[in-house]
Amino acid sequence: MGAAFSYLTSEIRFASPCRIDGSRTASRDPDCSAAYLTISDDAADGLEGHGFVFAVGGGEVQLAAIEAVMAIIEHRRLDALLADMGATWRMLVDRTQRAWLAPDGGIAHRAAGAVMNALWDLKAKRAGLPLWRLLAGMPPAALVELVDFRYLSDALSPEEALAILEASLPYRAVRERRLLAEGYPAAAASPGELWYSDDLLERLCREAMAEGFTQIKLKVGANRADDLRRLAIARAVCGPDLAIAVDAERRWGVDEAIAWIDDLSEFDLHWVEDPTSPVDLLGQAAIAQAIAPVPIATGEHALSPVMVKQLLQLNAIGYLKIDATSVNENLASLLLAAGTGVPVCPRAGGAGLSEVVQHLAMFDYVAVSGSMEGRAIEYVDRYHEHFVTPAIVRGGRYRAPVVAGSGSEMLPTSFVDHMWPILSELDGVA
Amino acid sequence: MGAAFSYLTSEIRFASPCRIDGSRTASRDPDCSAAYLTISDDAADGLEGHGFVFAVGGGEVQLAAIEAVMAIIEHRRLDALLADMGATWRMLVDRTQRAWLAPDGGIAHRAAGAVMNALWDLKAKRAGLPLWRLLAGMPPAALVELVDFRYLSDALSPEEALAILEASLPYRAVRERRLLAEGYPAAAASPGELWYSDDLLERLCREAMAEGFTQIKLKVGANRADDLRRLAIARAVCGPDLAIAVDAERRWGVDEAIAWIDDLSEFDLHWVEDPTSPVDLLGQAAIAQAIAPVPIATGEHALSPVMVKQLLQLNAIGYLKIDATSVNENLASLLLAAGTGVPVCPRAGGAGLSEVVQHLAMFDYVAVSGSMEGRAIEYVDRYHEHFVTPAIVRGGRYRAPVVAGSGSEMLPTSFVDHMWPILSELDGVA
Repeated sequence: MGAAFSYLTSEIRFASPCRIDGSRTASRDPDCSAAYLTISDDAADGLEGHGFVFAVGGGEVQLAAIEAVMAIIEHRRLDALLADMGATWRMLVDRTQRAWLAPDGGIAHRAAGAVMNALWDLKAKRAGLPLWRLLAGMPPAALVELVDFRYLSDALSPEEALAILEASLPYRAVRERRLLAEGYPAAAASPGELWYSDDLLERLCREAMAEGFTQIKLKVGANRADDLRRLAIARAVCGPDLAIAVDAERRWGVDEAIAWIDDLSEFDLHWVEDPTSPVDLLGQAAIAQAIAPVPIATGEHALSPVMVKQLLQLNAIGYLKIDATSVNENLASLLLAAGTGVPVCPRAGGAGLSEVVQHLAMFDYVAVSGSMEGRAIEYVDRYHEHFVTPAIVRGGRYRAPVVAGSGSEMLPTSFVDHMWPILSELDGVA
Repeated sequence: MGAAFSYLTSEIRFASPCRIDGSRTASRDPDCSAAYLTISDDAADGLEGHGFVFAVGGGEVQLAAIEAVMAIIEHRRLDALLADMGATWRMLVDRTQRAWLAPDGGIAHRAAGAVMNALWDLKAKRAGLPLWRLLAGMPPAALVELVDFRYLSDALSPEEALAILEASLPYRAVRERRLLAEGYPAAAASPGELWYSDDLLERLCREAMAEGFTQIKLKVGANRADDLRRLAIARAVCGPDLAIAVDAERRWGVDEAIAWIDDLSEFDLHWVEDPTSPVDLLGQAAIAQAIAPVPIATGEHALSPVMVKQLLQLNAIGYLKIDATSVNENLASLLLAAGTGVPVCPRAGGAGLSEVVQHLAMFDYVAVSGSMEGRAIEYVDRYHEHFVTPAIVRGGRYRAPVVAGSGSEMLPTSFVDHMWPILSELDGVA
């Protein structure tokens, strides 16, 4: 059993959000896409593992990177890879040849993450558990084994990580019951695209309030007068109690960020996301100090835990954002954040992100940080219908998934419909 | 003229250094390789631009990234691209779609750098000048236009960069004459591979001394007893005055680095290169403080000037290493380093690196830092015979190139012989 396995890589593309929303101004980033990986072997259970890297372009490069990572393991047995996911991860990000490609969370690192996530999906399915429960059922020492501490131990040693996980151990069962009963807070990211009309913004804010969300997010940074007008609309609709976060999508330099945020701060900003280059750690620390008490949220573009470690050492962030890729690195980031008390708020919005990141946030609540306070998973009501186990949000809260797996598996029909290049174009070539 | 252009991408692979050196123990990284790009148009001069990204594996991913970057410009005119190299660079690293792939100097960023370097090669050939002279002949304001200051201006404003360049302006001519007469210091990186026998190490140290090098470099970090023995051999052969640098190739965590370097410091280390993760800026600053006065040299794996900016802000490095890719980003790094007085010492050793980086170091001397003090370009006597204008080192100094271009063009026979997959294998497939 497990002596051979096969895999398939595909780019998956979805239509522009602006077309979905009926807004006329085109987005500069018209496609949401994913470099998608499916792994299966000849086991009698017939189960597949699915993983992906979310992107908005460059899918062909990301796919080439995933193929290169798969070449490392294609002669190995899946059951052996699944049995020691810490060793598998270390093998994929080994410091030698591939380190040239990915010192710090770039394409090659994300490719390794997509492979790991596909393996985690398969492992959870074989265990008959949703990923968050699989992880939250693992002994603390086994979780510590999943993390590569080489570049982290000056901030968090394996022993300190073990202590964090062991402190949660007695509370896992009660937290799991609470999570199943109450769900996990969601933050509405729908209202605030820059190209939305004021009317659409107002309507989406009203809908978010009506649906029970307690946090929304607006994009900012293109035009200061627009930002002020749009924030005034959102604050007027939502009242003083709803949390309004803003996202500058890396548009500003350090000094520009400080001045711009100062202008917006009258609207009681919940956080400012990605004010500048995500790898400008000192710049973000300088901004954080200048705009306090408004906190910075960042991290989804600086995927390496080595970068997360430094953001926390610098007190640069009030909230840590994480991406879906990968489970092993996110475990490291969750532990680093728990060690400093910084809440982790996963990004979502792109196809499949909600489905996967909810498992990470829920595992964090049950077994790592032990808290849902100040935390929320982003949510956009888009793309969920393409997944076998779509994320479910009711009353502004994610329901805890109960089906086995990581949530990343697409419906076969959706998969075929969104493959890129599209099949009809390929027919034309052939 | 210039209405159409064509390009070719190829992976170039070279045999393992260990085979070349006759040593028996295999390197874990057996290949030196390059993702190589050739650009030409229908101009009557028939000139081509050549650029590459140096790598030791992962070439197929790097090539896919270069193809993706070329898709951005393939419908444009080469002469228009060459006319405003600052605008061209900003177009290639635009913050939108491709920013997902490369926030910080990874594969996509290097791909954009390879494209820019091919364009610089062509621009220099069309100007009939070696690249260093083309750059050193540009007005300060035109050089400032080549840099994207968005994420740098809190440390170095365009006005400050202009002041640095203008301060060198009166001395350009005299420095150019000195450079042509005396050359630029070279550092011998040949002696110190980890898998070399003690006898080979001793012989290579003697040869480096005899050839007039005043600096050598040894790899360290695999085994502490081996490091101590090998450093004792090198110091005994080279005497107390030769500079001996060591390179840990990112092997250590922060605490491990401090303890290990402390053990080696009796040998009067010129610098410690890449002691830990190249993106652990705070870690490197902590190491630098602990091991002072031994300085850290790093930067070739953290190619983004945003990372260089922070290393300098943290006083983490005594020497800045730079890679050949790319001209525009290296100009930013040279200006940042000049602003703080930190010497820039380019990496070499891989195929084509010496040929290109010498132009950057010489331009730095003539028009930016104005100094060769404490500076040296690495040199390994390998691969140079494959290039049309090989780097020439005599008496421990690089001779200033006088032929037009950037040095990156390979000989057609070498190009065909080292294409990967090799042609005979492709024949077998067909």
